Amino acid sequence: MLKTSAYAAVSAVSPLAPYTIDRRKPGPRDVLIDILYCGVCHSDIHQVRDEWGDSIFPMVPGHEIVGRVVEAGLSVGSFKVGDIVGVGCFVDSCRTCAACTDGEEQYCEHGMSATYNGYERSGPQLDPDRPTYGGYSTRITVDEKYVLRIPPGIPLERAAPLLCAGITTWSPLRRFGVGPGSEVAVLGLGGLGHVAVKLAKAMGADVTVLSGSAGKEADARRLGADDFVVTSNRTAFKAHAERFDLILDTASAQHDYNAYLQLLRRDGTLVLLGLPEPSPLDAGPLVMRRRSITGSLIGGIRATQDMLDFCAEHGIAADVEVIGMAQVNEAYERMLAGDVRYRFVIDIASLRGA
Amino acid sequence: MLKTSAYAAVSAVSPLAPYTIDRRKPGPRDVLIDILYCGVCHSDIHQVRDEWGDSIFPMVPGHEIVGRVVEAGLSVGSFKVGDIVGVGCFVDSCRTCAACTDGEEQYCEHGMSATYNGYERSGPQLDPDRPTYGGYSTRITVDEKYVLRIPPGIPLERAAPLLCAGITTWSPLRRFGVGPGSEVAVLGLGGLGHVAVKLAKAMGADVTVLSGSAGKEADARRLGADDFVVTSNRTAFKAHAERFDLILDTASAQHDYNAYLQLLRRDGTLVLLGLPEPSPLDAGPLVMRRRSITGSLIGGIRATQDMLDFCAEHGIAADVEVIGMAQVNEAYERMLAGDVRYRFVIDIASLRGA
Repeated sequence: MLKTSAYAAVSAVSPLAPYTIDRRKPGPRDVLIDILYCGVCHSDIHQVRDEWGDSIFPMVPGHEIVGRVVEAGLSVGSFKVGDIVGVGCFVDSCRTCAACTDGEEQYCEHGMSATYNGYERSGPQLDPDRPTYGGYSTRITVDEKYVLRIPPGIPLERAAPLLCAGITTWSPLRRFGVGPGSEVAVLGLGGLGHVAVKLAKAMGADVTVLSGSAGKEADARRLGADDFVVTSNRTAFKAHAERFDLILDTASAQHDYNAYLQLLRRDGTLVLLGLPEPSPLDAGPLVMRRRSITGSLIGGIRATQDMLDFCAEHGIAADVEVIGMAQVNEAYERMLAGDVRYRFVIDIASLRGA
Repeated sequence: MLKTSAYAAVSAVSPLAPYTIDRRKPGPRDVLIDILYCGVCHSDIHQVRDEWGDSIFPMVPGHEIVGRVVEAGLSVGSFKVGDIVGVGCFVDSCRTCAACTDGEEQYCEHGMSATYNGYERSGPQLDPDRPTYGGYSTRITVDEKYVLRIPPGIPLERAAPLLCAGITTWSPLRRFGVGPGSEVAVLGLGGLGHVAVKLAKAMGADVTVLSGSAGKEADARRLGADDFVVTSNRTAFKAHAERFDLILDTASAQHDYNAYLQLLRRDGTLVLLGLPEPSPLDAGPLVMRRRSITGSLIGGIRATQDMLDFCAEHGIAADVEVIGMAQVNEAYERMLAGDVRYRFVIDIASLRGA
């Protein structure tokens, strides 16, 4: 095994602190990656604090990983030493179920192997004896099938958040065929929302940001939004009724779905990307205009590569604030206070140097 | 004007009783229809009792109308005297909005002219001085564009409910491309549900009825269902998890959407056809399997004709209990007690004779 420096939480009430993990030596189909940057996703906080009730400790978070291949197994065909690569929210899946064969590995019927707070596999099944550890660490060993190529042109620290925030917003934009003429709203201008604005705009859509914070308007427009609606002003819901084809809902706090549904045209769709607490759903706005609510979970490997290639082609990257590993606990507090524009990214050199 | 015998409620607390209304003399594009049968829809009760807060009194309910053309205006091209025709939930719409030009007149952006408890139009706008009166009456004058042809072969009393219950269930079955290989569940075996089973089966789907009443199993199977699941048994939700592509939800009482969502496969859809009270929606079942909830409101004229033609071709008609006009108040009570298999239809001869 390869002793590897990391930051871990040893319990739901522990801050993240230095920790050593074992990485497997690369097998024939594995690449060993020296991690350069790792984004800090809001779900890292949820899981470190066991807010979803499924946490495995000790936990090394991080699933927005960019690094350099330093070793490639004998059968590896897609990557070679020196390649700049990414790893997103999962590092394996059963490879045989309908979801996996559809290239939608995130919905693997046997459960994906989450990059952290998950399990590696023995055959198609998850192996409860082999927990996974994420990107708050200096290196990681991953089967090449679950590794992405970071195309040239995207600054690496700004590429990292695309592996989760990027693909999460890309998937529904593609699923609903967003393009010129589409009226797209993005609810919430945070880590996901700010990438959603850039992607939707690059696809040719007319993009509106819906936000409770009037102060975010200038930023929204700088990111490419054509319009900005302050949702704390309840008259806004009447003024913009039946306007949008698609709303990407990145809000993680409980909110009134019915109010947002009224902003959709006939056949429009509200896509939930977060996991807010349950909120009452009124059948009326669905029935009377054939609107829909759906959800979406990250995206498959093929779609993630498509998204990265699209970002390189269109000059899209996340807006980030680079921090050292030792600042991560403070960064969590700032994220909870909404004080980040728009993603913290850990410079893993700070961990390697330590 | 044409004095016309009807049954009306004069207030939200009045029983239905004999009443006389005026029908317009047929204009150049109108047909005058002698009504033969009118189905009794659950929404008749809601509106007669002003449970939706939008009732106009006096009210003559009824939007599942079958009759015979007895007069046709000079410009009428599609119908002639003697034709057997139907009228569904609306008798006009603006004809110019995107919904109308898409053939989805039920979503008319200026509001459809509901067959009763609505308004006729002056140009594209609804005219608040001209309330509409429904099919609990001996005749009705309707623009030919909003009249359906009842194809030969469907017993007329059994055709009437197709104009609402039929098209309401047909629309989502077609929208979601149901056919051989589709796993369709029908939640609730009532007026809508029993037609949904027949339609889905005729389209080639594998059909399961979800019902709280174990006693309905024999009927469900007689109607064509391949399987029957008793939903009052909560273990059923685990046993049938991730089974269906589509659930047609005909339940009008509040129920737990999250439980039913768990019965859907990845990318499956729960379609609300009723208007139950709001119920808490959990994002998890939507996000984790990319499931959707949507709604659907009856269907357009073109789709309604397609549905009627399909029913004639496949020998489909509603299961009905024919009553006289004077029994309608009692029929309402029986419907509220769930005591009808599966639709009351009024023989309008009983009103004409009176």
